[in-house]
Amino acid sequence: MSTDSKISKLFSTIDDLKPSFIDRLSKAVSIKSVSGDETLRPEVFKMATFLKDELIKLDATDVQLKDLGIQPPPVSISNLPLPPIVLAKFGNDPQKKTLLIYGHADVQPAQIEDGWNSDPFTLVVDEENDKLIGRGSTDDKGPVMGWLNVIEAHKKLGIALPVNLICCFEGMEESGSLGLDQLIKDEAKGYFKNTNDVCISDNYWLGTKKPVLTYGLRGCNYYQIIVKGPGADLHSGIFGGCIAEPMTDLIQIMSTLVDNKGNILIPGIKEMVAPVTETEEKLYEEIEFDVDELNAASGSKTSLFSSKKDILMHRWRYPSLSLHGIEGAFSGSGAKTVIPSKVIGKFSIRTVPNIDSNKLTKLVIEFVNRKFKELNSLNECKCELIHDGDYWVSDPFNKSFRAASKATKKVWGVEPDFTREGGSIPITLTFENELKSNVLLLPMGKGDDGAHSINEKLNISNYIQGTKTLCAYLHYYGESE
Amino acid sequence: MSTDSKISKLFSTIDDLKPSFIDRLSKAVSIKSVSGDETLRPEVFKMATFLKDELIKLDATDVQLKDLGIQPPPVSISNLPLPPIVLAKFGNDPQKKTLLIYGHADVQPAQIEDGWNSDPFTLVVDEENDKLIGRGSTDDKGPVMGWLNVIEAHKKLGIALPVNLICCFEGMEESGSLGLDQLIKDEAKGYFKNTNDVCISDNYWLGTKKPVLTYGLRGCNYYQIIVKGPGADLHSGIFGGCIAEPMTDLIQIMSTLVDNKGNILIPGIKEMVAPVTETEEKLYEEIEFDVDELNAASGSKTSLFSSKKDILMHRWRYPSLSLHGIEGAFSGSGAKTVIPSKVIGKFSIRTVPNIDSNKLTKLVIEFVNRKFKELNSLNECKCELIHDGDYWVSDPFNKSFRAASKATKKVWGVEPDFTREGGSIPITLTFENELKSNVLLLPMGKGDDGAHSINEKLNISNYIQGTKTLCAYLHYYGESE
Ligand SMILES: [Zn+2]
Ligand SMILES: [Zn+2]
Ligand SMILES: [Zn+2]
Ligand SMILES: [Zn+2]
Repeated sequence: MSTDSKISKLFSTIDDLKPSFIDRLSKAVSIKSVSGDETLRPEVFKMATFLKDELIKLDATDVQLKDLGIQPPPVSISNLPLPPIVLAKFGNDPQKKTLLIYGHADVQPAQIEDGWNSDPFTLVVDEENDKLIGRGSTDDKGPVMGWLNVIEAHKKLGIALPVNLICCFEGMEESGSLGLDQLIKDEAKGYFKNTNDVCISDNYWLGTKKPVLTYGLRGCNYYQIIVKGPGADLHSGIFGGCIAEPMTDLIQIMSTLVDNKGNILIPGIKEMVAPVTETEEKLYEEIEFDVDELNAASGSKTSLFSSKKDILMHRWRYPSLSLHGIEGAFSGSGAKTVIPSKVIGKFSIRTVPNIDSNKLTKLVIEFVNRKFKELNSLNECKCELIHDGDYWVSDPFNKSFRAASKATKKVWGVEPDFTREGGSIPITLTFENELKSNVLLLPMGKGDDGAHSINEKLNISNYIQGTKTLCAYLHYYGESE
Repeated sequence: MSTDSKISKLFSTIDDLKPSFIDRLSKAVSIKSVSGDETLRPEVFKMATFLKDELIKLDATDVQLKDLGIQPPPVSISNLPLPPIVLAKFGNDPQKKTLLIYGHADVQPAQIEDGWNSDPFTLVVDEENDKLIGRGSTDDKGPVMGWLNVIEAHKKLGIALPVNLICCFEGMEESGSLGLDQLIKDEAKGYFKNTNDVCISDNYWLGTKKPVLTYGLRGCNYYQIIVKGPGADLHSGIFGGCIAEPMTDLIQIMSTLVDNKGNILIPGIKEMVAPVTETEEKLYEEIEFDVDELNAASGSKTSLFSSKKDILMHRWRYPSLSLHGIEGAFSGSGAKTVIPSKVIGKFSIRTVPNIDSNKLTKLVIEFVNRKFKELNSLNECKCELIHDGDYWVSDPFNKSFRAASKATKKVWGVEPDFTREGGSIPITLTFENELKSNVLLLPMGKGDDGAHSINEKLNISNYIQGTKTLCAYLHYYGESE
């Protein structure tokens, strides 16, 4: 049977199985696997068991719940176990390529009081508006169920999977993927041996009309500036005007980092950014996006740019610096007349090719130290990196991307846009580096799904067509040279 | 009997009654009358009843517990009653002057876990170190008991009080004196009719060696700058670099308000400050204070000035501007990559003669608006006054101050220093304005008592000598022309 006729049969079976696929997602959504809520940890475990049972029903082999030990501090509940990572294999044919698929089964917190129109943990099937509404519908239970759906369709038809699959589904993604980095390192030559490529379905289309494939992510270096003076918080009536106030120093320094048009004022950073190539420039032209979509997403008319290209380039391929807040200062409502004794300013820089993380940190710290020295202050100041995660850019024309592009065309009738994202998925780099393989980001949901918001949804069509896309991708990837 | 022989007898009786005076303070301290802790409200009521019973035992007339109704929001416990204000009178002789004495019987929160060396609500009598240790010992139960002690000594000796006394003891001072302003207005021509002068004993010596009388307080105008842009908090990965971030605007504006040497950068304020007179200049020279005391109090070497006069003038008679914090920004520990959608910068300006509060507010708002306009931002900005309290300065050579000065000399053997304070006691102005009378601030405790800190203390000698000072003050004030 040709690939095309296999795909035809599979697509038709996927359509037939739609009610049971929705039922599968419905069951998954009903489990309150909020990784950030320690009291709900048993639900995250329940979710792992649910996945394990589904995988076994689908004839997976070597299904494991990988114990990750106790959650490191800070935790409220002591001896809190981390949820296990669910591992499973389908096929072990040395003639076939081996694809690792990753997803997460934990979700963001959700309560109806937040403003949901329905119980967040009861999947609402709204055929009229083409929506599946519920926490995790699009992030990331929908895509994970999508993979299971693909396997079920093959099983039902007795069609062999075109690749060996290794499943890696975690339960702490919304809480920093604790333990996953180490597991990938540990299993690079073990469970994950022979992995040729990695496919992650945990992001979204840029807009709502056109499917995309994602080939780049910005990195993120997070810094803090600690300014301390008095031994304890002081009363501004007694000490105001007589002593050097740490807040005044900190605000002065923070005001020198970035201007309000988004220009980073720390010298030497711009110079590290890779120049725009002609090929890259062309990619922007074809992408469907405009300033109205940015304004709709931000709920305001605060876009710094009006052209599509400027917006996307500043989101994807230029660095940015955001001031997040100040720890130790007064942050409540009302009026408190305190002189905080120690204040910690927080900011982060989104990084892009070819910004070297270490060099960036050196530039930032030197700049802050110089600015503080210029203040000639009696307080003490220290600037430090809290954490960094490198940027990631892949070749959007490699084997895996070509297969995904062909699958998208097959299902949606259009070539996908090739996009990057402004945020980071740190695990992408770990997979790439540790498994020496390429990663493809193949999203299922739309840009307006509201992943971390109230009334999170996945369009029914995206769920079913997305399942087909994953399915076709496997076949095109499997047969690629 | 001459005034001096009366005072001699009274002093000797005060010495005799020392054990029972300490016992009185001990009972007062044992009541956990923390006004800021709603769950302890019954204890604040118990404290009012304790005062009422003591006053009745001392033959007070017209003792009243003035009901102030329900505490206005924000409160956690609904229908929470405000503690009553305790009113009492001693004497009603039209030949005598009428003095209103004010104090508060509520205290700051305290828990042994905060670092106390002993239970904060069990008065420790440490004769060796001359200390009475416990929450409220110096702020303000000690001084309030001091007044009761004075009355008891008179009663014991059968000596008539030299003035008519009106007692006004509140239970919400540490929580903004809720209800007191209105009560003073309501009773100005009622219970408080005929008041000639007011004496408040609720502050401290400047240092630890020399008694002081306080004739001035700075005012406080508290402002907020609201900058808002996006409809909701945004992810800095997705939006960083593309939209105008409210935090960037706010930090820019806050950095223009004050420099890190304490100079207010808003034009027009300096010009309103009253010039230093020769008389005032001389007052500073005699005051016992130096930079080491400021450094000890701040727990650091961050004093902006090295000379006594510079420090005291900047604490007492020049305005200052403190940046307190930002509401709405990230304020926790760790790293959160948020772009806050709405941030509220908080700052206050301590005011002094002859800064006009309304004119100041106009200058501040105009300045902030101009600075925001210069930013040419896409966000919205609004600056507003949250609350103001005027400065207060009295004539340190009026009848009441002269009597207090003479009393201090009599008890302590030295002329008191004439001081101001950098903070504000808003009720001072209300008494002065509503009762058309002069207010004297006559402190009992020392500068190192730690009023709002752990291990709050009142020296035993200050308690007893302070009681004598209040006593002698009454007689010198009573006989003054
Ligand atoms: Zn996700
Ligand atoms: Zn997520
Ligand atoms: Zn007080
Ligand atoms: Zn107090």
